[in-house]
Amino acid sequence: MFRSADDFLASLEGVPQPDTNAMDLARARQGELTKPPGSLGRLEDLAIWLAGWQGTARPTIETVDVVVFAGNHGVTARGVSPYPSSVTAQMVANFKAGGAAINAICTAFGHRLKVIPLALEHPTGDVVDGPAMTEAQCLAAINAGAEAISDDTDVLILGEMGIGNTTIAAALAAATFGGGGGDWAGPGTGLDDDGVRHKVSVIDRALTRHVSECRDPFSMLQSLGGRELAAIAGAVARARTRRLPVMLDGFIATAAAATLTRANADALGHCLAGHVSAEPGHKRLLDRLDLTPLMDQGMRLGEGTGAALAVTILKAAAATHSNMATFAEAGVSDRED
Amino acid sequence: MFRSADDFLASLEGVPQPDTNAMDLARARQGELTKPPGSLGRLEDLAIWLAGWQGTARPTIETVDVVVFAGNHGVTARGVSPYPSSVTAQMVANFKAGGAAINAICTAFGHRLKVIPLALEHPTGDVVDGPAMTEAQCLAAINAGAEAISDDTDVLILGEMGIGNTTIAAALAAATFGGGGGDWAGPGTGLDDDGVRHKVSVIDRALTRHVSECRDPFSMLQSLGGRELAAIAGAVARARTRRLPVMLDGFIATAAAATLTRANADALGHCLAGHVSAEPGHKRLLDRLDLTPLMDQGMRLGEGTGAALAVTILKAAAATHSNMATFAEAGVSDRED
Repeated sequence: MFRSADDFLASLEGVPQPDTNAMDLARARQGELTKPPGSLGRLEDLAIWLAGWQGTARPTIETVDVVVFAGNHGVTARGVSPYPSSVTAQMVANFKAGGAAINAICTAFGHRLKVIPLALEHPTGDVVDGPAMTEAQCLAAINAGAEAISDDTDVLILGEMGIGNTTIAAALAAATFGGGGGDWAGPGTGLDDDGVRHKVSVIDRALTRHVSECRDPFSMLQSLGGRELAAIAGAVARARTRRLPVMLDGFIATAAAATLTRANADALGHCLAGHVSAEPGHKRLLDRLDLTPLMDQGMRLGEGTGAALAVTILKAAAATHSNMATFAEAGVSDRED
Repeated sequence: MFRSADDFLASLEGVPQPDTNAMDLARARQGELTKPPGSLGRLEDLAIWLAGWQGTARPTIETVDVVVFAGNHGVTARGVSPYPSSVTAQMVANFKAGGAAINAICTAFGHRLKVIPLALEHPTGDVVDGPAMTEAQCLAAINAGAEAISDDTDVLILGEMGIGNTTIAAALAAATFGGGGGDWAGPGTGLDDDGVRHKVSVIDRALTRHVSECRDPFSMLQSLGGRELAAIAGAVARARTRRLPVMLDGFIATAAAATLTRANADALGHCLAGHVSAEPGHKRLLDRLDLTPLMDQGMRLGEGTGAALAVTILKAAAATHSNMATFAEAGVSDRED
């Protein structure tokens, strides 16, 4: 666990890099497999990328862990979501009973699912009036994320549930990359145009209130929240120290992870973008992070659902790369030229 | 099996339609599931589509069958591929030994895989000089496809292997939708610009030779070939009579299926486009067929690999749709408005 805000921030400096030797070996292997060179397209790049982070020429994906963090937000009192904040706890119960979309997807693909509610009965502070969390609360949330990673995970997916959290994610995106509420806010779970305009004004007031505090990832998360976003940031930071690949989900998970780049522009080298969500700010975030999403299904549910589906592409990349026969092994003729 | 060319063509008239009652029930169910309306994006449309073809409000995908047909082509004597045609049989051996990309993907996702070589020792005729097949040969190839469908399949994927078959697929695409070799030919397994120019000229000569014979799907397949493309067309046609959903793979599989639209514009209503391949003619084919691919990974390998990966999206669509709890079941509050 991180002992303090400074310890968390220090972990983002001098982060481990991918194993370039393993990547070179993987690149060479790609040229020997029984297929025309390049014919697996992006799967070939993914396999080489994965080789770097796993430190082996033949990477594998056996265990995919999806961890869903839930939090409540004081800002919901300002009417930024069409759903009441009581839905957060109700959805946590739904996750635990196996009834949500992320349950169905994890079951379909054999992913492990962990659900971590974070002090739902104590919403974060209303960010228009003051900080979302105390320093201790923020550190606890970051550590809840860092400690949620199992030892035997091959790929980590971080999901979230929290009524009101697209408002917070938009504020964090603005704090990270500049701009205001109008640049980053969207309909979320289903606001109409008037609702989005109101949401933009709430975000802009929060940004004005906290502009001097948004100096680094920790202070941004403490000021704006929320607990589930801090947990995702903590998990992504810890995953990097372990060289564990992360597949990012949608707007909220990506906004949480993006805060880390304020401490180190290279902080997300171990992250892939699983998909691009229908929430318009997500594409802008991915562009700023120079991440190309693996797919676009028009999803905007969160919970980790987009990444939990898209990780099948990474799994196929590893399976083809590591399990196919070479031309020599299979006795197949290579090109004539 | 189809008893004759006429029997095959007759099967394409008056094809079964999706069950609109099941689709209406599925659409209603989507509105009751514990998620914001529309938040699963295209997965919601896919689930409703699948409900129509399976004839149930809660469709399921348990068994995915991938059937790979292999054939050899006389046109390879004209130097249209950088690989020797002996590679077709070598790759069939590789499929049977489990060493190819499609093996790795099927194993990763639990798909069943069947490999059907079609008279590899007897390549089809050189289409520049004459017909690819006799009527009896073409009917046998179509029936090899129709008879490859298992009774317990939920989704059918048709793959192919055949050195030289992008040349044949381009000729079929031109015969189906018009245009010449230059509109439909691409680098295939890896031709350079000169190679593509030569391929275009070979295709144009074949089209000129067979223009008067390309009246209907059977005559097109008989004239231009090849056995594996005729088998795919036969399987797609038979799947429709059984209302069995098909996920199309790349340029070659799509070109084979597209021939059926010359008999009935609605012949491919039971088909989805799994992906768009890097072979440039594939996007043009999908546009003409009004099919929106589920993903784009820059793949261009064939063997069914793109569809075998993309079917995970359809699987996720069915799993979320049929296995999620409703708001009432989960005790989750719906929107406040």
